[in-house]
Amino acid sequence: MDTKNIGLRNIEVADTKISSIDGQRGRLIYRGYDILDLTKNSNFEETCYLLLYNELPTKNVLEKFKNNLRNAMSIPKQMQNNMKNWRKDADPMDMLQAFVAALAGYYDEEFSDKNSSYSRAVNLIAKIPVIVANWNRIRNNLKTIESDPSLNHAENFLYMLTGKKPDKDIAKIFDVCLILHADHSFNASTFTARQVASTRAHMYSAASAAIGALSGELHGGANYEVMKMLLDIKTEDKVETWVKKSLKDNYKIMGMGHAVYKTYDPRAQVLKELSKKLAEKTKEQWFNITQKIEKVTIKEIKKERGLDIYPNVDLYSASIYYMLKIPVDLNTPIFAISRVAGWTAHIIEEKFAEAAPKPALYRPKATYVGKYCGPHGCKYRSLDLRTK
Amino acid sequence: MDTKNIGLRNIEVADTKISSIDGQRGRLIYRGYDILDLTKNSNFEETCYLLLYNELPTKNVLEKFKNNLRNAMSIPKQMQNNMKNWRKDADPMDMLQAFVAALAGYYDEEFSDKNSSYSRAVNLIAKIPVIVANWNRIRNNLKTIESDPSLNHAENFLYMLTGKKPDKDIAKIFDVCLILHADHSFNASTFTARQVASTRAHMYSAASAAIGALSGELHGGANYEVMKMLLDIKTEDKVETWVKKSLKDNYKIMGMGHAVYKTYDPRAQVLKELSKKLAEKTKEQWFNITQKIEKVTIKEIKKERGLDIYPNVDLYSASIYYMLKIPVDLNTPIFAISRVAGWTAHIIEEKFAEAAPKPALYRPKATYVGKYCGPHGCKYRSLDLRTK
Repeated sequence: MDTKNIGLRNIEVADTKISSIDGQRGRLIYRGYDILDLTKNSNFEETCYLLLYNELPTKNVLEKFKNNLRNAMSIPKQMQNNMKNWRKDADPMDMLQAFVAALAGYYDEEFSDKNSSYSRAVNLIAKIPVIVANWNRIRNNLKTIESDPSLNHAENFLYMLTGKKPDKDIAKIFDVCLILHADHSFNASTFTARQVASTRAHMYSAASAAIGALSGELHGGANYEVMKMLLDIKTEDKVETWVKKSLKDNYKIMGMGHAVYKTYDPRAQVLKELSKKLAEKTKEQWFNITQKIEKVTIKEIKKERGLDIYPNVDLYSASIYYMLKIPVDLNTPIFAISRVAGWTAHIIEEKFAEAAPKPALYRPKATYVGKYCGPHGCKYRSLDLRTK
Repeated sequence: MDTKNIGLRNIEVADTKISSIDGQRGRLIYRGYDILDLTKNSNFEETCYLLLYNELPTKNVLEKFKNNLRNAMSIPKQMQNNMKNWRKDADPMDMLQAFVAALAGYYDEEFSDKNSSYSRAVNLIAKIPVIVANWNRIRNNLKTIESDPSLNHAENFLYMLTGKKPDKDIAKIFDVCLILHADHSFNASTFTARQVASTRAHMYSAASAAIGALSGELHGGANYEVMKMLLDIKTEDKVETWVKKSLKDNYKIMGMGHAVYKTYDPRAQVLKELSKKLAEKTKEQWFNITQKIEKVTIKEIKKERGLDIYPNVDLYSASIYYMLKIPVDLNTPIFAISRVAGWTAHIIEEKFAEAAPKPALYRPKATYVGKYCGPHGCKYRSLDLRTK
């Protein structure tokens, strides 16, 4: 094969109107709007609307959209019962992948028209936080908590998770995290969602597959790995030795480096500030440790390999979630709570693209480099004749 | 974007030793062996071994492999209980996608080494038929049936499904179907599995995602659509009018045409013979109807569009499963029972490729064609200022 195609890094597979990344200048744009503008002025619900409908909503339209989200923020009783009859130590990402696939059995509107795709999108955005929060309570033998219509999306997740209505500042920090993770062009989980949708599978099926892709440590799973690293290092004074040893042993420093950004990831910049703010409030050491990891890694990689490296979205989100007292293994499910906005927008774009070039079933080629005994194949030998 | 990249049809994304398709000459080769040789001389278990290990097993090795499969041919009681507490009208593919993701909670061996990947592969190959058969009995309020160690893989599925040990000839026909569907290079579900695995997600997660991709009607879902078409047409004399009308209305004739084969799909050839044989036995009309669809479609497409078209793997498999008295909506799950052999082999190849060029996380590019208000993005306007 042509090594330029490895990981498809240089291949443009489709047109998109959803988001654009400027890896050189460190900019991320959703539907024309810079995420720095959105984190400052918008909120997660409005950002979801923007990603799905390609424009900012008017007041009435936004109210209606928020109502639809609130009304969909529950899951069937039968599904909660099934959760209770699940292994309590199951990985929350496996749970989420399974229960999102299962949603199709409960909400099986006709999927082939664009309008019902939008209601499926609302369903998924509303129900993924419910699944995550319910599961966390069920595995801890706690009663599940119903969403509260007086709360916004970010507040509701924290409320369903803990049973306490969150402080407004805390909820706003979480809301900004949700905005920042909502889309990132053709990342691995989004491309998986588009690929599954390209076979004309329905949206729940595509979203469930995307959750599978997100779980990997080279993708969404990285924010969980970052927190494991912080907990392993524990104190700021141990950072330097830890990073140097890891680099010497050729381990990847989680949260550092990105396939697309060749400068500071704009999301990392915002998250860094939030982590700092939270640490000042909670007096915890996690921001300082993280910042030290950033500094040492940048310095060492420059010294040893002559390369520039920058933090990615996962480096500072890990400590934020930890300081928000969210269980560590929910870091990646939280990524899903946000990224589902992008997945559903991309699935709709994949299925209902209006202009050429329209997407088609993804069916790449591979280069066969295996056994070859001529065009008719190797000759099958019966079991008795096989000695090796 | 470059329209040559649409659907990745012309892009070689990786090297593979697993299978090769000669679309010009109509040949499909698994690990060096022509599938026509394998359907004549081999069986599904041996084919699974070949796909996973790159060689035909010796007698002892095959015995051991079959034993491993047999020993893994059950699912946890708790999972069966959950099935009972599911919506009885859920789509079997959604069920399968959910429960395969759930398997990870039950069989969580260390996934990062190659040996445990092989045992996960055995687990998946053994348990997918159990999930499908159990679910079909549970949704019909029947007692589930345990696999019988005296039966082979094909026999066991039919036994767990119906409760009756199948006739040897019938089971052999089903076994050949399983061999034929076991792998097909980088088709959409296999590429999905590889993509999810490329993030370092575990094998159950990747297989569950592949099931999602398989469910689409442009991929595995097509064999279900073919049977719906046959049931809609009902009698041979209605075929001509039906096909002509469908083509006139620009509907796709399901089971005809393939992205890769430019001649007769070798799998369709074998399946056609099997369908004919079965129809002679059962005295049913489904083979004749199917053959007539093939003839009329070929003739009409040639006449109207000047193009050659051939049946694909789905055209004749539909009638075979129907004559085997398998519920129509299990056609695609049966495809999964077979294709999981290929998926697991590809996941292992993706994760543990020995030689360069090694695969990397699939992260393609997209061409942004959306709103653009300059490099800093459009200016966010507060809700009060938005009138449209």
